[in-house]
Amino acid sequence: MKDVKKLKIAYIGGGSRNWARNLMNDLAMDGDIGGDVDLYDIDYEAACDNAVIGNKLSSLNDVVGKWQYRAVKNLSDALITSDFVVISILPASFDEMESDVHAPEKYGIYQSVGDTVGAGGVVRALRTVPMFVDIANAVKKFCPNAWVINFTNPMTVCVRALYKAFPEIKAFGCCHEVFGTQKLFAGLIYEKYGIEVKRDDIKVNVLGVNHFTWVDSVKYRGENLLPLFDEAIEKHPDGMDHFDLNWANRSNKSRYLVTMDLYKRYGLVPAAGDRHLAEFCPGKWYLKDPATVDSFGFDLTTVSSRKAKQKEKIAYTKELVNGTKELTLKHSGEESVRQIKALLGIGDFVTNVNVPNKGQLEGFPLESVVETNAYFSGDDIHPIFAGKLPTEIHSLVSRVVDNQETVVEAAMTGDYELAFKAFINDANMNLPLDDARKLYDEMLYNTREYLPAYDKYVAQRKNK
Amino acid sequence: MKDVKKLKIAYIGGGSRNWARNLMNDLAMDGDIGGDVDLYDIDYEAACDNAVIGNKLSSLNDVVGKWQYRAVKNLSDALITSDFVVISILPASFDEMESDVHAPEKYGIYQSVGDTVGAGGVVRALRTVPMFVDIANAVKKFCPNAWVINFTNPMTVCVRALYKAFPEIKAFGCCHEVFGTQKLFAGLIYEKYGIEVKRDDIKVNVLGVNHFTWVDSVKYRGENLLPLFDEAIEKHPDGMDHFDLNWANRSNKSRYLVTMDLYKRYGLVPAAGDRHLAEFCPGKWYLKDPATVDSFGFDLTTVSSRKAKQKEKIAYTKELVNGTKELTLKHSGEESVRQIKALLGIGDFVTNVNVPNKGQLEGFPLESVVETNAYFSGDDIHPIFAGKLPTEIHSLVSRVVDNQETVVEAAMTGDYELAFKAFINDANMNLPLDDARKLYDEMLYNTREYLPAYDKYVAQRKNK
Amino acid sequence: MKDVKKLKIAYIGGGSRNWARNLMNDLAMDGDIGGDVDLYDIDYEAACDNAVIGNKLSSLNDVVGKWQYRAVKNLSDALITSDFVVISILPASFDEMESDVHAPEKYGIYQSVGDTVGAGGVVRALRTVPMFVDIANAVKKFCPNAWVINFTNPMTVCVRALYKAFPEIKAFGCCHEVFGTQKLFAGLIYEKYGIEVKRDDIKVNVLGVNHFTWVDSVKYRGENLLPLFDEAIEKHPDGMDHFDLNWANRSNKSRYLVTMDLYKRYGLVPAAGDRHLAEFCPGKWYLKDPATVDSFGFDLTTVSSRKAKQKEKIAYTKELVNGTKELTLKHSGEESVRQIKALLGIGDFVTNVNVPNKGQLEGFPLESVVETNAYFSGDDIHPIFAGKLPTEIHSLVSRVVDNQETVVEAAMTGDYELAFKAFINDANMNLPLDDARKLYDEMLYNTREYLPAYDKYVAQRKNK
Amino acid sequence: MKDVKKLKIAYIGGGSRNWARNLMNDLAMDGDIGGDVDLYDIDYEAACDNAVIGNKLSSLNDVVGKWQYRAVKNLSDALITSDFVVISILPASFDEMESDVHAPEKYGIYQSVGDTVGAGGVVRALRTVPMFVDIANAVKKFCPNAWVINFTNPMTVCVRALYKAFPEIKAFGCCHEVFGTQKLFAGLIYEKYGIEVKRDDIKVNVLGVNHFTWVDSVKYRGENLLPLFDEAIEKHPDGMDHFDLNWANRSNKSRYLVTMDLYKRYGLVPAAGDRHLAEFCPGKWYLKDPATVDSFGFDLTTVSSRKAKQKEKIAYTKELVNGTKELTLKHSGEESVRQIKALLGIGDFVTNVNVPNKGQLEGFPLESVVETNAYFSGDDIHPIFAGKLPTEIHSLVSRVVDNQETVVEAAMTGDYELAFKAFINDANMNLPLDDARKLYDEMLYNTREYLPAYDKYVAQRKNK
Repeated sequence: MKDVKKLKIAYIGGGSRNWARNLMNDLAMDGDIGGDVDLYDIDYEAACDNAVIGNKLSSLNDVVGKWQYRAVKNLSDALITSDFVVISILPASFDEMESDVHAPEKYGIYQSVGDTVGAGGVVRALRTVPMFVDIANAVKKFCPNAWVINFTNPMTVCVRALYKAFPEIKAFGCCHEVFGTQKLFAGLIYEKYGIEVKRDDIKVNVLGVNHFTWVDSVKYRGENLLPLFDEAIEKHPDGMDHFDLNWANRSNKSRYLVTMDLYKRYGLVPAAGDRHLAEFCPGKWYLKDPATVDSFGFDLTTVSSRKAKQKEKIAYTKELVNGTKELTLKHSGEESVRQIKALLGIGDFVTNVNVPNKGQLEGFPLESVVETNAYFSGDDIHPIFAGKLPTEIHSLVSRVVDNQETVVEAAMTGDYELAFKAFINDANMNLPLDDARKLYDEMLYNTREYLPAYDKYVAQRKNK
Repeated sequence: MKDVKKLKIAYIGGGSRNWARNLMNDLAMDGDIGGDVDLYDIDYEAACDNAVIGNKLSSLNDVVGKWQYRAVKNLSDALITSDFVVISILPASFDEMESDVHAPEKYGIYQSVGDTVGAGGVVRALRTVPMFVDIANAVKKFCPNAWVINFTNPMTVCVRALYKAFPEIKAFGCCHEVFGTQKLFAGLIYEKYGIEVKRDDIKVNVLGVNHFTWVDSVKYRGENLLPLFDEAIEKHPDGMDHFDLNWANRSNKSRYLVTMDLYKRYGLVPAAGDRHLAEFCPGKWYLKDPATVDSFGFDLTTVSSRKAKQKEKIAYTKELVNGTKELTLKHSGEESVRQIKALLGIGDFVTNVNVPNKGQLEGFPLESVVETNAYFSGDDIHPIFAGKLPTEIHSLVSRVVDNQETVVEAAMTGDYELAFKAFINDANMNLPLDDARKLYDEMLYNTREYLPAYDKYVAQRKNK
Repeated sequence: MKDVKKLKIAYIGGGSRNWARNLMNDLAMDGDIGGDVDLYDIDYEAACDNAVIGNKLSSLNDVVGKWQYRAVKNLSDALITSDFVVISILPASFDEMESDVHAPEKYGIYQSVGDTVGAGGVVRALRTVPMFVDIANAVKKFCPNAWVINFTNPMTVCVRALYKAFPEIKAFGCCHEVFGTQKLFAGLIYEKYGIEVKRDDIKVNVLGVNHFTWVDSVKYRGENLLPLFDEAIEKHPDGMDHFDLNWANRSNKSRYLVTMDLYKRYGLVPAAGDRHLAEFCPGKWYLKDPATVDSFGFDLTTVSSRKAKQKEKIAYTKELVNGTKELTLKHSGEESVRQIKALLGIGDFVTNVNVPNKGQLEGFPLESVVETNAYFSGDDIHPIFAGKLPTEIHSLVSRVVDNQETVVEAAMTGDYELAFKAFINDANMNLPLDDARKLYDEMLYNTREYLPAYDKYVAQRKNK
Repeated sequence: MKDVKKLKIAYIGGGSRNWARNLMNDLAMDGDIGGDVDLYDIDYEAACDNAVIGNKLSSLNDVVGKWQYRAVKNLSDALITSDFVVISILPASFDEMESDVHAPEKYGIYQSVGDTVGAGGVVRALRTVPMFVDIANAVKKFCPNAWVINFTNPMTVCVRALYKAFPEIKAFGCCHEVFGTQKLFAGLIYEKYGIEVKRDDIKVNVLGVNHFTWVDSVKYRGENLLPLFDEAIEKHPDGMDHFDLNWANRSNKSRYLVTMDLYKRYGLVPAAGDRHLAEFCPGKWYLKDPATVDSFGFDLTTVSSRKAKQKEKIAYTKELVNGTKELTLKHSGEESVRQIKALLGIGDFVTNVNVPNKGQLEGFPLESVVETNAYFSGDDIHPIFAGKLPTEIHSLVSRVVDNQETVVEAAMTGDYELAFKAFINDANMNLPLDDARKLYDEMLYNTREYLPAYDKYVAQRKNK
């Protein structure tokens, strides 16, 4: 049988100062498994820094999970013989992201994240999908039996591309947005009863697509918690940000006003951060203009602030590497290590995950990627039947699924004319045809370096 | 066997000066079938007028279809022993319709018809569905084996209500919008080749819901006609209204600019009039403001113009009744008589029709009412497998189907809170929640006389 | 547009003395279309004979359909530029068929036809499928837009193989067994009312798979004819063969006793000849032994009788070729010419056909080949939604569909171990595992010349 | 929140000397929950005996689970305010069972259990379904929110009847047959590696219907165990009964020869005891005659042996009640208590269960009852997506599902003519129509006391 102390993990985007660091921490804190981690990144130096940090971690006395880290220069070196592959990449640079997020503003289209849906999400997908197709092909060649864990956005689109390129791949996408909702309810229990409850003891039935998931059942020990939410809305009409619950994944300013508004509209709890939720709704609802955004208590993320933050992180990394700053162990709150162990047969459990629809989400096309609960056990992930969304919410989510199917198809075939159909069908894109085309062309231009079929598209357009 | 010269038809809305008159004409021109027609209308006098006109028709020398017309005061009298039931009613009066169409304008929401979707369509549905539930129950009681033909809008919602109230009903909805598309192509053939082609020799594969149908195949003698449409768009960039094809069902001003725009966006031909199509799309596309509407070459129907037209029709009717105006025979272009005959086993054929989805339209919920081709033969309508809409169009149509399912459910249970969810999910309704609620409440108030659960709703609202 | 007087038809199995001759006749009797027919057959001489006969037909004075016939030596010559491809081949020789039909008798397994299901059907399929894969590949290469019409058995398996090998193929399978049921009802009408009714005026809703179809609705002019069948069963308890209705497709002795027995068991009319129906049922029902067969009034077809018949046909053909016997025109009763015309846009109509399941037959896997009605119009075949079989009949038909899916998969991958699973799952195959294996191995041996993976299978078996 | 020490359980069949006693034991051994158990049985005295035994158990010193037992005379008394309802009844007496099992023998039909499928299963279902309809109606009235756990056979049919009678019921069926397969593999691990592994650490993916389930994946710590089974078959060609693994649920003689034979035929492991498996297969395979049964190493259960056993149990019970025999605690190996706790939110887990198909078993009708894994958490059971059976096995199982659907429908409508269609469609029923009818009529007669529509059926038959 497999020796779970001699595993190999390939980390694509291994220079990541966020996700990779989280995983390294969590691996360090688990004594059941061990082995090698190969870090691959187009920014090789960043991968080297992480290797140093990782190996330092392994040498700490109180560290039970001993892993050997190594930066590698080729994807194939990372993948070969791997048992697990983790992907967390930044597709292109912050410059492309700047165009994704801010170019549409001149047409009155505001985006709070711009990496999942909307104009930004579509264009980001167009350049990201080919990268994931390459990864899928490499996995097929070098480690076809490995489990592939994705953290990159647009999540749905990335996972879908992996499966389209290599249908037998064993891949899934992880996202912590639902955890935030579980924590919110843990907070409500605490507020009311003074009892401290663990996040994953809040049982939710998850339905939807990544960043636009909904829960139709929230329970603690079999007890329905929705009445608690009704109470809380009444008590905190101006938002729930006063809970100092300090969770990682809702770090951006949020008072749950979008969550509350959607709950009032539809009667189910949307289970993602407000900044994400807003982008899936018709533009006038929450993203009409900065004032509206402000009134709903969340932020329009600017890419300039992200650039600033990145600088800080780089500096901090250097301090960790050269020993100026000391390493501290802290669990990230993410579930990857628990998932890895369950896939090795060490503890089965149920959590939310992004995988192709086998029927777990009724009323959506088979094979489209959806987010519901799934059962992780030895070398298997079985989706759990989640049921169906109410018709009114189905209507909102169906549009997203359709668009993401179109975008993946378009990106894989290089048919940017087809992608334009998704671009204009987006909830937050209510422009006349000509304006929509102008914006689209501009955004493609800004990201052309990463678009394999860009020239073909331009040539076609000229002929029209 | 059934004597097809001794049929009985019940006409609900038998005072109708349009649809009833059409049917009377077409029946008069067909020598294969005959019998009695009972006209029932809440406007009994109008039904009496039609009875007079119908019997006059039967007495004309050149009339081969001999029918006996009678106005009746009770629905049950009309239905009992009927072989066919025809429904074409005006749900409530033009005053309610005025609110449906024009009340939303103060929020910048323009509607070109207001009877199918949108704010107007939802509210119209709420008052119409209970009427159709009553009809379905009466059919169940008095003539459960009769075929029921509906012409009333909102078509989808009306047919769905009939089936929900009496699942074994043999009902279908007829609409001539697709005929207009067939005629458009007949016109294009004529323009190019000088050949006159009959409408129903243009074979189309119909997919969608009423007033938002699409055709993915248009053929004449097996030849694909889409290239002809591409040519025509190039030749007539400002619209195709210069064909003087004079067809009934596109009587309102239209230059097919919405049709052309949607075709350019999605690559399939939408098969309904521009005024209808516009209402299914995000508001900024075609209905942003009167100037936009004008630039797409169609009209915002005003209810005042309809009121004026009605007066003319009443006057004209009186002249027909008292003999001042002479009756003339002219085929309406509708297919009801052909359908009736096919259902009697006299000539099977294929045409488009609104019936519950048995899988004929892939990707849409079973039992929701869709419009595709169906095969009419003796006492049977079998839907024809139409295939699936491209993902991008599915996205638009799915929203409509979801909304209509919600509205029927809401109307049948008197749950106007649920209907509000459909109201805010409409493509042409991009308002903040508070504004949407204000508009909704106003529109319900205006039509309260026909809303069985109005008081309950108001009481609930007060408690919030 | 296509000139329908200059069509090209490729006939694979063009030496056929039955099906090819039928088509030649029917083409000759239709004045609307014309062109060239290329006859391809591994028996080139037989194709030449048919070419002579065909051209003689075209030269007859009263012949309105003028076609030029030519025997060709290569499949590619026949296919290239073809508009239609017709397939009616004998897979291998009568010697292989002898094994198919008679080898199982030593285990007490009797087969009345042995070409569709059962031990014989499975083995026949294994050698036929590779031939159809070759044809599909050639069609893809030489005439991908042609319509392909198959008459060869096992029908379901052949059509399925065409679609598996070339998913975009426009193929369908024709079978006249259902016509026999329509004629039976025409006969019942004649018996009772003295009215002569055309076969295709008997409207049936067809559900099932080839040779095991059922009709849940039989109507003439909208009138339900099932009560007539009930009466007939009472009146003719010993069988209905006394109707001298003289139809081609039930030429073999039959008194409808199997039909009647199945109708009594299940309440629906099975719509194929008794010899076929019997083979789909558990062996003890109708095929227990020759005495049982005799008591149900049908025959076990012997291959020796077929061989004898063939000799006669060859002699007769020679007489036609050398002019000793005169050619006479007589419509075959088949529908191919009508179908061809409908696909050219000349007259749309509805008939039963074998095509992949798009949902027209509820409760069966998508893409498996089923037989229901379909709508033929210009360049299109749209299946008509047939509904679902009663659960009890579903149970019988589902087994057949599953087995045929397995056999096609097995034949295409050369996995005769997989095919054995279908072999033992057959309704008429109730043997212990060892006996079943012995019989299977013997039958494969007898037909080994046509089994591409035979040696691989033998090698595998030896290793066990 | 619910006080889990003050639960109420209703036990229908509370006089049961097997299942009820098991539950009492397991409850006694669990300290987390407590409350009242009401025992209801038509044999009131037996319920009283169990109440005495239960309360004795609760008074034992080492017992941590304290429950109060009470025998009640009315079903409603048992149900009212219940949180859980357990059903384990003997439908009718051993006399009826004698007819079920042995009456068919005179036609050469042997049954090894006769309580699930086959002639015996069908007739047992006909009398059991009405009892379950009564229970469902009572649950609806007295404790609609209670969870209902069924142990009675025919399992599938009983659970289906509960849902048909009260669609909102929260019911599921438990069966330990799959545990036996897990134990077999635990045994194989022990045999090879000497490691002792807990049954539920063997992870299986379950697909099928009760007593005819299959597993397509058997894993321990992520490792595939099928190669171990291949080895074992080679090593133990005469059967695997020499493992002295001593598990309760395969108490009857079995050497896994049927399991091995089916595995060789189909490549998947059937996961039920041989006696059950044999009954789902064509009669000649394993149940041809007593000699064949013997050669496969299992027994034909005789009802006389059951009667004898029962006498012993009654005597033993009396000794427990009057204190002659001492009570001992021993876990039953069943999972009910674990399931009850999970439904109370105390420990979520995954196990196999019988519930309506929501899509968890692909290729089978929605709402039919199937057995797959499901996720038990607070007040929820979510089926886990199991995938699909290979086509060849689908064929076998589909027949069972169809038959059980027919039987439930027939039993609920009192349409024994319909049930006869299931009777003749059974795998082990290969009789000519007349013999089948004779046997059916005899078996109905023998059980007529429990058949509400028996007289109607007899009257109908006379009219034929």
